[in-house]
Amino acid sequence: MSDLTKPLSIGLFGFGAVGQGLYDVLQRTPSLRTRITRICVRDPLKSRSLPAELFTYDREDILADPNVDVVVELIDDAEAAFSIVSRALRNGKPVVSANKRMIANKMPELLALQRETGVPFLYEASVAGSIPILRNLEEYYDNDLLEGLDGIVNGTTNYILTQLAKSSSLNDNAYADALQDAQRKGFAESDPTMDVEGWDAAFKTVLLALHAFGKVLRPDQVIRRGISTVRAEDIAFAKANNAVVKLIARVRYSEGELLASVLPTLLPRTDALAQVDRELNAVRLEAAFADKQWLVGKGAGGSPTASAVLSDLSALRYGYRYAYRKLLANGTTRIAQNWSVTLLAAGPAKEVAGIPFSNVISEERSGPSTRVIGTVDLARLSTLPVFRSRTLFLAEVAEGVVAEEVDGVVNERELADHSIH
Amino acid sequence: MSDLTKPLSIGLFGFGAVGQGLYDVLQRTPSLRTRITRICVRDPLKSRSLPAELFTYDREDILADPNVDVVVELIDDAEAAFSIVSRALRNGKPVVSANKRMIANKMPELLALQRETGVPFLYEASVAGSIPILRNLEEYYDNDLLEGLDGIVNGTTNYILTQLAKSSSLNDNAYADALQDAQRKGFAESDPTMDVEGWDAAFKTVLLALHAFGKVLRPDQVIRRGISTVRAEDIAFAKANNAVVKLIARVRYSEGELLASVLPTLLPRTDALAQVDRELNAVRLEAAFADKQWLVGKGAGGSPTASAVLSDLSALRYGYRYAYRKLLANGTTRIAQNWSVTLLAAGPAKEVAGIPFSNVISEERSGPSTRVIGTVDLARLSTLPVFRSRTLFLAEVAEGVVAEEVDGVVNERELADHSIH
Repeated sequence: MSDLTKPLSIGLFGFGAVGQGLYDVLQRTPSLRTRITRICVRDPLKSRSLPAELFTYDREDILADPNVDVVVELIDDAEAAFSIVSRALRNGKPVVSANKRMIANKMPELLALQRETGVPFLYEASVAGSIPILRNLEEYYDNDLLEGLDGIVNGTTNYILTQLAKSSSLNDNAYADALQDAQRKGFAESDPTMDVEGWDAAFKTVLLALHAFGKVLRPDQVIRRGISTVRAEDIAFAKANNAVVKLIARVRYSEGELLASVLPTLLPRTDALAQVDRELNAVRLEAAFADKQWLVGKGAGGSPTASAVLSDLSALRYGYRYAYRKLLANGTTRIAQNWSVTLLAAGPAKEVAGIPFSNVISEERSGPSTRVIGTVDLARLSTLPVFRSRTLFLAEVAEGVVAEEVDGVVNERELADHSIH
Repeated sequence: MSDLTKPLSIGLFGFGAVGQGLYDVLQRTPSLRTRITRICVRDPLKSRSLPAELFTYDREDILADPNVDVVVELIDDAEAAFSIVSRALRNGKPVVSANKRMIANKMPELLALQRETGVPFLYEASVAGSIPILRNLEEYYDNDLLEGLDGIVNGTTNYILTQLAKSSSLNDNAYADALQDAQRKGFAESDPTMDVEGWDAAFKTVLLALHAFGKVLRPDQVIRRGISTVRAEDIAFAKANNAVVKLIARVRYSEGELLASVLPTLLPRTDALAQVDRELNAVRLEAAFADKQWLVGKGAGGSPTASAVLSDLSALRYGYRYAYRKLLANGTTRIAQNWSVTLLAAGPAKEVAGIPFSNVISEERSGPSTRVIGTVDLARLSTLPVFRSRTLFLAEVAEGVVAEEVDGVVNERELADHSIH
């Protein structure tokens, strides 16, 4: 990898949208001196757009080939991906991967493998597509003390929520209709569980927490609710309050404790993240001295994701690897056991009653349904069975959406322009 | 610089808002192991908030002190700054600077000095305050072919334009009033020329062009108009067309030719940059594969700028320096001699008539004034005396603001949501 002038030979695993995007990108830019020399795919019967001799069905044709400089891993199967990555690293081949599921689940093993082999493993494309968030967290936000981050990191749910927010007539099937529309347009998979239940965002949150705060989390340690229980009336309620519902990935940090979550969130319409629509992704950082900053870009799609893979390939040429400095420095960071948030709970009154609000800000009944906004300990709530409810809509409520109680007096609704302070 | 565990000793030049911000940041974060050990200031009579023994009036107390590891240069005087930086680099001391004026004017000399001495010189804080744009351009957008960038990089003019856009009653003194307000609040200097005439933005554009496209420009090669000729009726015209006036720094690039400009620009209200208000800065990149991406954050102020200085200091610890790879790779990039843009020209009819429009899209007369929107060769226009007019308001008109002629037919006004495509 140290000879910068040498053409780079890539062994590619997987040839879906991102793999094809990468192939196209490299074909169109010979100046990169990077070539895909072998592609390992699973299905020998599928017809391919490229010459047959490029393809192989035996991973050893890449992993054991001394002429392959770098392995790019872009397959779906997380188990197979881990075994490919492990073997490549042990064989001394740097790896670029976009497999957030595998990486989030196997992070302890992958850290050990990198330490043991000294071979670089980069995965910028696994979080927020084209947005260079991991590299920035690792290199640039190293010393400006980060206080937290939040973002929109799943394009499928953001597309669905954007459609819902834009619709003028919402009926009881609003969510189901929007999901179907997203599936028709290729923004959602036929089994959308990973996306709509927030798993995909949780995997990415694991990677954000590691590179932002140096803490290795398991995906099930991310407090998680998806969007599948959102109802037309919840969208309407947000709209009536000059707010927007977004699925927000968030890592809160304070004095050595952090709490990671993926939650539907009501944001003021003027919030910078509220304006991030459709398949766009965004990550916002809050730093002690730089104040808030955010990065916005395409979060999905073949070309944007391929461009992130490309940047990793280019970084490998220059000897880049993640130093995991914060992991080494902040080894004692703990998961917080308490964290107060403002929460909206809407649905069957009996279930809402099971939410241990410490303070109720507003309450509204209509028939068998209740909508309560109040303060709750999110860390504690996440351990209760009611947090797994399939009928409740639970959403965090960002500052500025509803009146807040201050010194015992409920203030006027405050809709300050959060995007400029 | 290679001993990462050693505390870093900083010699600081200048103790204005940013210098004080940096001092505070370092005091509050002992974990950074970075200390300001000496501060060189000009005025011995000014009272200081820190112990007198920290200060010196003799630059050699820092430049010749073997115990000073790094020089941080934060003074106003560009000539003095250059002499300090040169001497520091020759003495083997890495330098961090925020002096865009000096850096933009002396880039050829500074490149030669870096080559000659091999000593790192970093200046992230000089462009867009806390936003890590130079480092990203240099490292991350190395290989995804950039097609252009635009942004809001001057907080003073953005504050003034934001006030004008928000005002409901604009009179003939609108600009003068807004400028005064900005001066009162500390957002504009008593001599605002550098900001309002676009010089500050032009200096930053020189740095963006270098790190994005590897081309060294002189500041006077940036096509430049400020905001001082904007009239209440121009703001009203923008508003009536669902547009916003912003001062946009832009580098256009195509096939080895680039054109850099700082121009008032009418943006559709829905454009991502149109929503960047007050002292916020933003830079948007357009890349072949990643599509559009933008970074937003605080562009000015002591703490945000200090945080960028801090990131440079931290990068020095890890041996970072700008590699100027694109400068080496794209040595043949030329300044374009022709570039068509859509331009609005408003003011005395006789002067407007001097603009060599190749195609007029709309024309409106009211008394002695005319407002024309049309297509013009910006490179050629910038060489004509009329481009220096002190009475004309000239603004680029972004796509989506006015009807455009396509195949001889004028289309309906198109206000597509530019923020999501």
